[in-house]
Amino acid sequence: MKFLIICYLLVFSNIILSQSQGKYTIVIHGGAGYIPADISQNVKDAYLQALSDALNIGRKILESGGTSLDAVEQVIRFFEDDSIFNAGKGAVFTAEGTHELDASIMNGKDLSCGAVAGVKTIKNPISLSRLVMEKTPHVLFTGEGAYKLGKKFGVDIVNNHYFDVVKRYEQWKKKHDENVKGTVGCVAIDEYGNIAAGTSTGGLTDKWAGRVGDSPLINAGTYANNKTCGVSCTGQGELFIRNTVAFNVSALMEYKGLSLQEAAEEIINRLPEGSGGLIAVDKDGNYVFVFNTSSMLRGIANAEGKFETAIWK
Amino acid sequence: MKFLIICYLLVFSNIILSQSQGKYTIVIHGGAGYIPADISQNVKDAYLQALSDALNIGRKILESGGTSLDAVEQVIRFFEDDSIFNAGKGAVFTAEGTHELDASIMNGKDLSCGAVAGVKTIKNPISLSRLVMEKTPHVLFTGEGAYKLGKKFGVDIVNNHYFDVVKRYEQWKKKHDENVKGTVGCVAIDEYGNIAAGTSTGGLTDKWAGRVGDSPLINAGTYANNKTCGVSCTGQGELFIRNTVAFNVSALMEYKGLSLQEAAEEIINRLPEGSGGLIAVDKDGNYVFVFNTSSMLRGIANAEGKFETAIWK
Repeated sequence: MKFLIICYLLVFSNIILSQSQGKYTIVIHGGAGYIPADISQNVKDAYLQALSDALNIGRKILESGGTSLDAVEQVIRFFEDDSIFNAGKGAVFTAEGTHELDASIMNGKDLSCGAVAGVKTIKNPISLSRLVMEKTPHVLFTGEGAYKLGKKFGVDIVNNHYFDVVKRYEQWKKKHDENVKGTVGCVAIDEYGNIAAGTSTGGLTDKWAGRVGDSPLINAGTYANNKTCGVSCTGQGELFIRNTVAFNVSALMEYKGLSLQEAAEEIINRLPEGSGGLIAVDKDGNYVFVFNTSSMLRGIANAEGKFETAIWK
Repeated sequence: MKFLIICYLLVFSNIILSQSQGKYTIVIHGGAGYIPADISQNVKDAYLQALSDALNIGRKILESGGTSLDAVEQVIRFFEDDSIFNAGKGAVFTAEGTHELDASIMNGKDLSCGAVAGVKTIKNPISLSRLVMEKTPHVLFTGEGAYKLGKKFGVDIVNNHYFDVVKRYEQWKKKHDENVKGTVGCVAIDEYGNIAAGTSTGGLTDKWAGRVGDSPLINAGTYANNKTCGVSCTGQGELFIRNTVAFNVSALMEYKGLSLQEAAEEIINRLPEGSGGLIAVDKDGNYVFVFNTSSMLRGIANAEGKFETAIWK
């Protein structure tokens, strides 16, 4: 009898186990920077609520057996549509008083990737990036060419003023860059073991026309590889390009055998204080938030029931 | 007396040594691809003469104590001005019948870098890339913004038709891509131990408007780091982006302790046959040409008197 009970429990626990193949981890960021510690409770609540809403979108997709690519795209679309963040609606103003948006996405399963840079009328640059990845033989499209591609694929096109938000306009008028590092990003691993990463941004307040930072650049701002990890960066883009930050985390893991935490810390420690940071998930579902600024809007959810959002260190 | 002779020899050998600080290595490429083995002697001679002329420009700069950055820029300017190569004048036609040029340059001393993508009227994209590196806080400029920057810096601006060449037009009309991998590049180390690398291209024949390949992307098509090596790539750009080819050579040397030859072979072997190749120089002046196509227009010169050009394996 005891033996039968044990057999029964073993079979039952296996069923539980095979159901808990629903393993996933998702991390998000809304930019690393210097959000003052004395912001009003209202502003703080708004940030945390938006992070929590974003995380819930990704969590639900992953919990119901969806892919990490879908989770990453949908979370970033939410950020792009929320004017609190410097991506999509709410993007900062360029020196010319317009908006130029950048985004990228990568699939760790086969290293396929897509990106757009300097788009002015694409409502959701992350979704056009995914179309570039899945529907073209190319990786990166810029400006007018990216617009034509978007039109061909039937994505939502908006007037450049759609992205205007009063707060950003005032920041630009004052050349005040409190929130210049407000890039958004998401990295997730799904129950199939596939890692995806994506990043989207309006770039730097008052940036020169045509300037492209790290966000739409695979290897610099975004990287994903099922063998190692997925990474999304936020910060002073030029430093992230010169130091190949996103890919470097993967390279330090693959070639030097570092853990995700060690690799992420090693590369961020090479950058000057205040440069920014990154979020990452490895192939075992471990995650990190590493940044050398005072704040990073961020969140984590996983299949073990963890669900957390935070602003400061 | 013997002691005096030894002293004299020691002093003399030191003079010789300090004079042989004039050590340098420079490698160049005019694209990896499939140049038929039966091309006419005239065409073959024209290729080899152009490679030899380019190499001489770099050699003279380096021999007279010039910097690797100057050598790389001037060699690539020469390639851009020579209509044999798919860079600058002679660039391939896009699907819209125009030209969109890309270039990048990197300084291994401090990882500073500059690049332009999708420029239509800049006569020498490599020189504008260098200005981006040295005169702006940014790394990459695209399209109209890059044009405005070029105008501000007073670089040569030309009509887009300046880049037209009959051969390219016929290739485009026939959608014939014999020479689509005609990117040009140069990597050098100077007597001060500084490594520089640069790449310039017209991209793919019949490419979609706005498509950007690996050539203007630091880490993918171009990389230089005095700690390890300098690299310039040529081939199917998207594969080079996904596999972080240029930076990967450096990462495999730094993190796994591979030699330049081993690192370059490891990364090119990951790519499908026919993808392209790379040229590279390491911090000790060693050099490699690694490609998985049938041809790579290439050349090498160094302070030991080596001066060679070649087309096929």
